[in-house]
Amino acid sequence: MSGRLYGLGVGPGDPELITVKALRLLKAASVVAYFVAKGKKGNAFGIIETHLGDAQTRLPLVYPVTTEALEPPLCYETIISAFYDESAIAIADHLEAGRDVAVICEGDPFFYGSYMYLHDRLAARFEAEVVPGVCSMLGGVAVLGAPLVYRNQSLSVLSGVLPEDELRRRLEASDAAVIMKLGRNFEKVRRVLVHLGLAERALYVERATMANQRIVPLDEVDPMASPYFSLLVVPGEKWRA
Amino acid sequence: MSGRLYGLGVGPGDPELITVKALRLLKAASVVAYFVAKGKKGNAFGIIETHLGDAQTRLPLVYPVTTEALEPPLCYETIISAFYDESAIAIADHLEAGRDVAVICEGDPFFYGSYMYLHDRLAARFEAEVVPGVCSMLGGVAVLGAPLVYRNQSLSVLSGVLPEDELRRRLEASDAAVIMKLGRNFEKVRRVLVHLGLAERALYVERATMANQRIVPLDEVDPMASPYFSLLVVPGEKWRA
Repeated sequence: MSGRLYGLGVGPGDPELITVKALRLLKAASVVAYFVAKGKKGNAFGIIETHLGDAQTRLPLVYPVTTEALEPPLCYETIISAFYDESAIAIADHLEAGRDVAVICEGDPFFYGSYMYLHDRLAARFEAEVVPGVCSMLGGVAVLGAPLVYRNQSLSVLSGVLPEDELRRRLEASDAAVIMKLGRNFEKVRRVLVHLGLAERALYVERATMANQRIVPLDEVDPMASPYFSLLVVPGEKWRA
Repeated sequence: MSGRLYGLGVGPGDPELITVKALRLLKAASVVAYFVAKGKKGNAFGIIETHLGDAQTRLPLVYPVTTEALEPPLCYETIISAFYDESAIAIADHLEAGRDVAVICEGDPFFYGSYMYLHDRLAARFEAEVVPGVCSMLGGVAVLGAPLVYRNQSLSVLSGVLPEDELRRRLEASDAAVIMKLGRNFEKVRRVLVHLGLAERALYVERATMANQRIVPLDEVDPMASPYFSLLVVPGEKWRA
């Protein structure tokens, strides 16, 4: 009998924001797999490592590149695709040997998580179960104390990499918005918010719920030092019910 | 010393999808408050009731109306606003007496939760902490086995109450979408999805992660029987990395 594949959301950073279910399945898994940058411990691994027992196999999946911007003839898509293929094979070997594999995912597995690429490669061949987690977006609004969407307001979740005019169009059409993947896109995003008169309403947080969390007023953010794990939030207008 | 106010996300329905942190704070709270419809137990209360001790005070906040569509001279906004005022006063009485109050919220407190109206009334006067939870949207895509958003895709979270042309416009501009508050809006939403050629990609689930969860193909949903706690998901196109 083959093992079961689990995609476990472990939450946005605070180790206590893991669910009871993910914690139970994590402790019971023979193999615990996680994505990690070369030379790093990995955010998801850091969240759960105190819960692991000696008998559990650690399977780090080490990204071959740390940026999508590569010099030709290198191609990010080709390299990362081969990496996901190999990662899926490494996991499949354990599953075929009858061992359950838990892939731990920062935030939620299906909300911009790398687990999705494993799921797409393995879920047709093996039993797979996804345990949802608290996503970074909701971790962010919780620590900001900012109710996100009221009643029938619509929410847009946008990536900071979008071109400036597209960002503007999408923000104009939203009642509330969360912008992720800031990093070096920060200055562009701030410009759009100012242009739309949304800068006063916007809130900014780095590494929400993590030990090194920082909440900074929008006009005090250093655009050269905004980390990847930062969020901009434009909460919906308060509904004065 | 005043007590502390907690907004605790208890997750989308499966009692195991509460976080370790929310569970700890829930058990420690002197008063546990929750919104509930008249004559019902309440979804959030049902999720956590086995964890409550005899010494904890239950504070049900009973909605005065069950629909927003009222006959004049009754006005939903006026009635519900007075109800939130009274609820905030009832909670403030406990806080002023030095008792911690945990308001339990299905899903996440700041993602369309009624707790937001209490937070807006009380957070300036009392210490308030929000513990984020797994929202119904992510519970839904987990049980559907549907990765929601890849890489730089944008996501729209929309309400089924939006007018048909506005729904169409917003869906056209999205890479991925989740439509909530279906109920009697279901047929209108399905029509828009068919019109945009999105019906094949769309997935439907009722009461995701709850004991009576149902996953139904879109063309087999009875539009007269779609419950309020149902979701339509249009996942982002798979990124074949």
